[in-house]
Amino acid sequence: MEPFSQQFEQRSRDRGEQRMADHTPPRFDADFRARLYDLLRWRRDVRRFKRDPLPDGTMERLIGVACLSPSVGLSEPWRFVLVENAKRRAAIRANFEVCNKEALEMQDPDRAALYARLKLAGLDDAPVQIAVFSDRGTAQGGRLGRLTMPETLDYSVVTAVHTLWLAARAEGLGLGWVSILDPARMTAILEVPETWVFIGHLCIGYPQKEDDTPALEREGWEHRHAPEGVVIRR
Amino acid sequence: MEPFSQQFEQRSRDRGEQRMADHTPPRFDADFRARLYDLLRWRRDVRRFKRDPLPDGTMERLIGVACLSPSVGLSEPWRFVLVENAKRRAAIRANFEVCNKEALEMQDPDRAALYARLKLAGLDDAPVQIAVFSDRGTAQGGRLGRLTMPETLDYSVVTAVHTLWLAARAEGLGLGWVSILDPARMTAILEVPETWVFIGHLCIGYPQKEDDTPALEREGWEHRHAPEGVVIRR
Repeated sequence: MEPFSQQFEQRSRDRGEQRMADHTPPRFDADFRARLYDLLRWRRDVRRFKRDPLPDGTMERLIGVACLSPSVGLSEPWRFVLVENAKRRAAIRANFEVCNKEALEMQDPDRAALYARLKLAGLDDAPVQIAVFSDRGTAQGGRLGRLTMPETLDYSVVTAVHTLWLAARAEGLGLGWVSILDPARMTAILEVPETWVFIGHLCIGYPQKEDDTPALEREGWEHRHAPEGVVIRR
Repeated sequence: MEPFSQQFEQRSRDRGEQRMADHTPPRFDADFRARLYDLLRWRRDVRRFKRDPLPDGTMERLIGVACLSPSVGLSEPWRFVLVENAKRRAAIRANFEVCNKEALEMQDPDRAALYARLKLAGLDDAPVQIAVFSDRGTAQGGRLGRLTMPETLDYSVVTAVHTLWLAARAEGLGLGWVSILDPARMTAILEVPETWVFIGHLCIGYPQKEDDTPALEREGWEHRHAPEGVVIRR
């Protein structure tokens, strides 16, 4: 397989050779912004996947795009673990089941029935599973910008996950972020270094359905609120 | 001033009324993806701003777009504090100076001179400053998805910051995320509820220069690494 960077660079050359070469800043117009807003509006946290595999090289390309994300001090602390082994996948599924059962038991009785009906993971059908970690031990970036807030390393990884999410959606792929998991178990199951902090487990594949409304809103669990409620002035 | 949601919805209606109305999923083509990659490639963490003010309604629109971001359990825990008061801005600048001095002193001697030359905040020139918090105390979302990982609330806020960043860049605006700050001091300076966790302080304005290379790479502090180094298979 070609290295990721070559695959990614090849794509880039195919599509913007002239501008890449002379480093002329791009101009983004109203049409592009409208499409970008469409992308944001139709990005979903997908739980129901088709089982079809992805074309070869898809994940390499998407991870290459994700690596364009911002990171504190240019530390690039994101670590992507492609989970392919069936036993490890089964162990992650078992981890989810335990945590989800505990979460169900902690719900108010009048919400428990609704909770139980929600589909909260796409672990059985999604062809791709990626566990994402933040390397808190990385020397890259010389600790710049993270002395008072070491959690900014984790935040950098979250921006990379979000970039991956948007890039996937722009190819018609869905992504579901599973967080009902025990982080320590994930580290053990995947045998990654102790300095890696678990950020999230991603299921990726073709969605059964595209939607502009969050599943939790469709199912009556919660609804989105107006933006003015989250802004204050000081 | 019009409420945020109305302003945002008006824009949406102007640009995609038909598709919005019938909820037909958009199709994203190779041209759009190439432009999206351009956006990601030319997003920068901006530290040098022009002092020009932003057009009225810009921040309301951008925050409305940011609220399209994913959030754990649909909790929407993002809280945006528009910092306008001169005394509070001065206090934040003083907070940065203290933290930055400490960070400088902790650098290796051979890196300290380079560190001192880096411009690490745009607090003096950026017309807009926004402190962003995560409301760890929110009841919204019924704690779904966050029992084992309450930090996913903060991660949700980070995706909103990243969305704001991309939406700003698509309008030719730059954003700089300042993290060399004491979170407890930020909470005190801005007099926000104790349950709010400080995520980051954002400077927004027109950049003095557009670039496809991170400032820290241009200045010789750090360089980006090839994506294949951050992927493992399990």
